[in-house]
Amino acid sequence: MRMYDLIMKKRNGGVLNHKEIQYMVMGFTEGKIPDYQMAAMMMAIYFQGMNEQETLDLTMVMAESGETLDLSGIHGVKCDKHSTGGVGDKVSLILGPMAAAAGIPVAKMSGRGLGHTGGTIDKLESITGFHTSMEQEDFIRQVNEIGIALVGQTAHLAPADKKIYALRDVTATVDNMSLIASSIMSKKLAAGADTIVLDVKCGNGAFMKTPEEAKTLAETMVKIGNGAGRKTIAVISDMNEPLGYAIGNALEVEEAVEVLKGQGEPRLTELCITLGAYMLYGTGLCRKIEEGREKMTEVLKNRSAYQKFLSFVAAQGGDVDEVKDTKRLLHVKYIEEVKAPESGYISCIQAEEVGMASLMLGAGRETKESALDYSAGFRLMKKTGDKISKGETIALLYANAEEKILPAKQRFLEAVSFSEKPVAKEPLIKYVIQE
Amino acid sequence: MRMYDLIMKKRNGGVLNHKEIQYMVMGFTEGKIPDYQMAAMMMAIYFQGMNEQETLDLTMVMAESGETLDLSGIHGVKCDKHSTGGVGDKVSLILGPMAAAAGIPVAKMSGRGLGHTGGTIDKLESITGFHTSMEQEDFIRQVNEIGIALVGQTAHLAPADKKIYALRDVTATVDNMSLIASSIMSKKLAAGADTIVLDVKCGNGAFMKTPEEAKTLAETMVKIGNGAGRKTIAVISDMNEPLGYAIGNALEVEEAVEVLKGQGEPRLTELCITLGAYMLYGTGLCRKIEEGREKMTEVLKNRSAYQKFLSFVAAQGGDVDEVKDTKRLLHVKYIEEVKAPESGYISCIQAEEVGMASLMLGAGRETKESALDYSAGFRLMKKTGDKISKGETIALLYANAEEKILPAKQRFLEAVSFSEKPVAKEPLIKYVIQE
Repeated sequence: MRMYDLIMKKRNGGVLNHKEIQYMVMGFTEGKIPDYQMAAMMMAIYFQGMNEQETLDLTMVMAESGETLDLSGIHGVKCDKHSTGGVGDKVSLILGPMAAAAGIPVAKMSGRGLGHTGGTIDKLESITGFHTSMEQEDFIRQVNEIGIALVGQTAHLAPADKKIYALRDVTATVDNMSLIASSIMSKKLAAGADTIVLDVKCGNGAFMKTPEEAKTLAETMVKIGNGAGRKTIAVISDMNEPLGYAIGNALEVEEAVEVLKGQGEPRLTELCITLGAYMLYGTGLCRKIEEGREKMTEVLKNRSAYQKFLSFVAAQGGDVDEVKDTKRLLHVKYIEEVKAPESGYISCIQAEEVGMASLMLGAGRETKESALDYSAGFRLMKKTGDKISKGETIALLYANAEEKILPAKQRFLEAVSFSEKPVAKEPLIKYVIQE
Repeated sequence: MRMYDLIMKKRNGGVLNHKEIQYMVMGFTEGKIPDYQMAAMMMAIYFQGMNEQETLDLTMVMAESGETLDLSGIHGVKCDKHSTGGVGDKVSLILGPMAAAAGIPVAKMSGRGLGHTGGTIDKLESITGFHTSMEQEDFIRQVNEIGIALVGQTAHLAPADKKIYALRDVTATVDNMSLIASSIMSKKLAAGADTIVLDVKCGNGAFMKTPEEAKTLAETMVKIGNGAGRKTIAVISDMNEPLGYAIGNALEVEEAVEVLKGQGEPRLTELCITLGAYMLYGTGLCRKIEEGREKMTEVLKNRSAYQKFLSFVAAQGGDVDEVKDTKRLLHVKYIEEVKAPESGYISCIQAEEVGMASLMLGAGRETKESALDYSAGFRLMKKTGDKISKGETIALLYANAEEKILPAKQRFLEAVSFSEKPVAKEPLIKYVIQE
C-alpha cells in the first residue's frame, strides 16, 4: 500500500476502506508517512468528504491509536458529557455533581483550554489545592466511593488524533464535518464511557454558526457513537450569547455553585437539567425524559448535587471553604462597572467577542505557555432581551492589570448591540439527535 | 502575511495576488514555509484552480527564483523548442541543426530523462565523447560561431519549480493545467529564449491523453509565454504511436541522422518541418508558414542541416565518424526480430507500452541513479495502418542482456493490436495555438 495512491483515490472521489485508513493514520502517527502527504490527504478530504463508514473507521482507528481507559472497574453504566465549546460554558462543573447525585457514575477525563477561558480543569484549579493528577486505580476508586472523579487527559489518549489535529490546524483543513466529528469522538471513545451525551453549541460564539451545521455535526457524531456501540445522544443548544452570567475561571466556579444551590441563571440551569435528563435516559436510569428532568430538578432542590460537588472538591485536594464562600475564590484588584452607552433592549451580546475581551484580561491562554489569571473575566448583569437605560451597568469587569481594563471594556462594548423594540431570545434547545 | 491565510483563501475559491504568490513560492523555496502547508495549498489549487493572472504570476516568480540565462550576447532572435514528452521523440536532435542551418540561433538548455528513454542529452551522449558541460561564455561563443550549442540544465535554474514539482510528485497534485503549464514555462522563461515553440504531445503515449486536454495545456502555456513578453506558439501533435521508427538512445540518434539526410520516416520529417516553420515564423525570419516550410525542406535537401549537426557534435567533443556511420553507434549483443502473431492491419501501437518495454531493456531510467544502456531499444519496421502478415517482422529489439529480451518482447507485443479492416491514421498535427 502506498500513501500516494490513497491520496489519489480520495482526490478522485474514491472511498477509503478500513485497511487503508488504518495504514494512513498509523503510518502518520508513527512517523512513517510524512506530514506533507497527510496534509494533501486532509485537503482532499476537505473537498471530497468521507462517507459514514469512512468516518466511523477513522474515528475507531484514532481511538485505538494509544491508551484507552478501562472503566470496567466502575459499577454501573458510565456516562460522559461533552460540549463542543462555547463562551461561559461551565456546564461540566455543574452537571458532573448533578449526574453523580442522580446515580450516574462520572469518570471524566478533561483537558486544559486554549481559547477565551480555560478548560474545565483550569476552572477547577482556581480552587486552591485542587489537582487532577492521579493514578488510574485511585481515579476508579474515587468514582466508586463518591460517584465522581476528574482526571487530566493524558498525552497517550488518541495520539493519532492529536497529531492529525495539529496538522489540520496549520493547513486550513479543520472545518470538515467528518474530521471534526471523528476528532471529538475518538477521544470520547478512548475515554471509555458507555453512554455519551453531546452538547453541540450553535451560534456566533460556537464553531458551528448555524443550526443546520450544528445538526449535521451532531448527526455525524451520533452515528459514530452508536456505530461504535456507545449509546450517543446530542443536544443542540444556543451559543449566541455567553452561557449564564460569568465568563472567567473562578467566576464560572462561583456561578456553578449558584446553580448547584438552585439559585442559578434560568437558561443555564435549564440546560444542565436537560442534559442531565438525557444522561439518565441514555444510561437507562429513566424511561422518559420528563422523569429525568424531575430527578435532575430534585438533586438541585435538595442540595444533593451541591453536596456532591463539595465531596468531589475535597477528594481532589481543593479548599472546600472557598466553594462554601465563593467570594474567597476571587483575588482581584479591580472591579469595573461596564455601563450602557444607550437605552433600549439588548439585541445581541456577541459571545465570541466577549470571550476575546476575557482573553485580553488574562482569563484564557493565547498560547499553550500563557499563564492564566483565574480571577479575571466578566460577570454579566444583563442578558439578551433585557431592557436597559443609558448609564446602567451591563456587566462587571474583573482585572488585576490596570492597563488591560480599558481595551477589554471597549471590546466588550463592541460586542453589545441595542434595539428600540423588544427582542425575542433564541430558543435554548434547538434539536435533540438520537438514533 | 501568513501561509495559513493563503491556504484558506485558495481553499475557499479566492484569487491569490502577485505578492501572495511571491511570498508563498519564495518562502517555500527558502525553507521558511513548511512542506505540509505547501502540500495543502497544492491540493487546494488542484480543486479550485488558478486564473490566468495567477498562473502567469506563479510562472514568473518560479522563473525568477534562481539563475536566469542571459542570452543577450547572442546575435539574432533566439528561439527555443520544447516538447511535453513522448515515446521516440528525437525531434530536438533534428530540429536544432535544422533551425541553425536556417539562421535561427539555437542556445538550448536541456535535461536528462527519467522515463522510457533518456532525454536529449542522454541520447547525444551515446555518441562517444559528446559532452554538455561548458562555461556560459563558451556556450554563447559556440552559438555565435556555429549557430547551435546544447548545455545541461543547471540545478540553479528555477529552483522553486524544482522543489514544488518534487512535492507535487509525491502528493498527487501534478495533474492541474495551471501547475503543469507554469512548471514547464518557468524553466523556458529562465532559459532566456525570445521565442518559444511548444510541441504539445497528445494521445496514449503522452501526458495529455485527449486533444481537448492538450489544447487547454497549450493555450495556458501560450498565454503565459505571451504574457511574459516571449512570442509563444504551440503545435499539438499526435502521440498515439511512437514517433518515427526508433525508441532508444543511440537508435534515435541514428534515426535523427536519417531525417537530416532527407531519408527519414515521413511523419517524423513532417513534424520537424512544421515545428521548424513555426520557429522561423515566430522569430520573424519568414512571413508565412509556407515560406518557413520551404526553407526547412531546403535545409534537409541541401544537407546543410546535416552538416550543421556534424559541426555541432564536433564542437561538443563527439566522434563525428560515429555520426557519419551510425552503425558504429550501436554496441549490442542481441538483435531479435519481433514477429506478428497474426495477419491484418496494425490498428494501434500503444506508445506508452512500447516505452515501458524499452525501459525494461535498459533504454530509460527507473530511478535517477539507473545507468542507461545506450544501445538498447526497438526499431519499428511497421507502423499504425500498415498491413502485415503473420510471422512478418514488426520490429527489431536491441538488447545486451539476454534475460531481458523475452519480457520486453512480450510487453511490446501486448502494445500492438490488429484489425481486419484498413485503419486510418490519426492526423499528425491537431491544432496550432498562437495568440
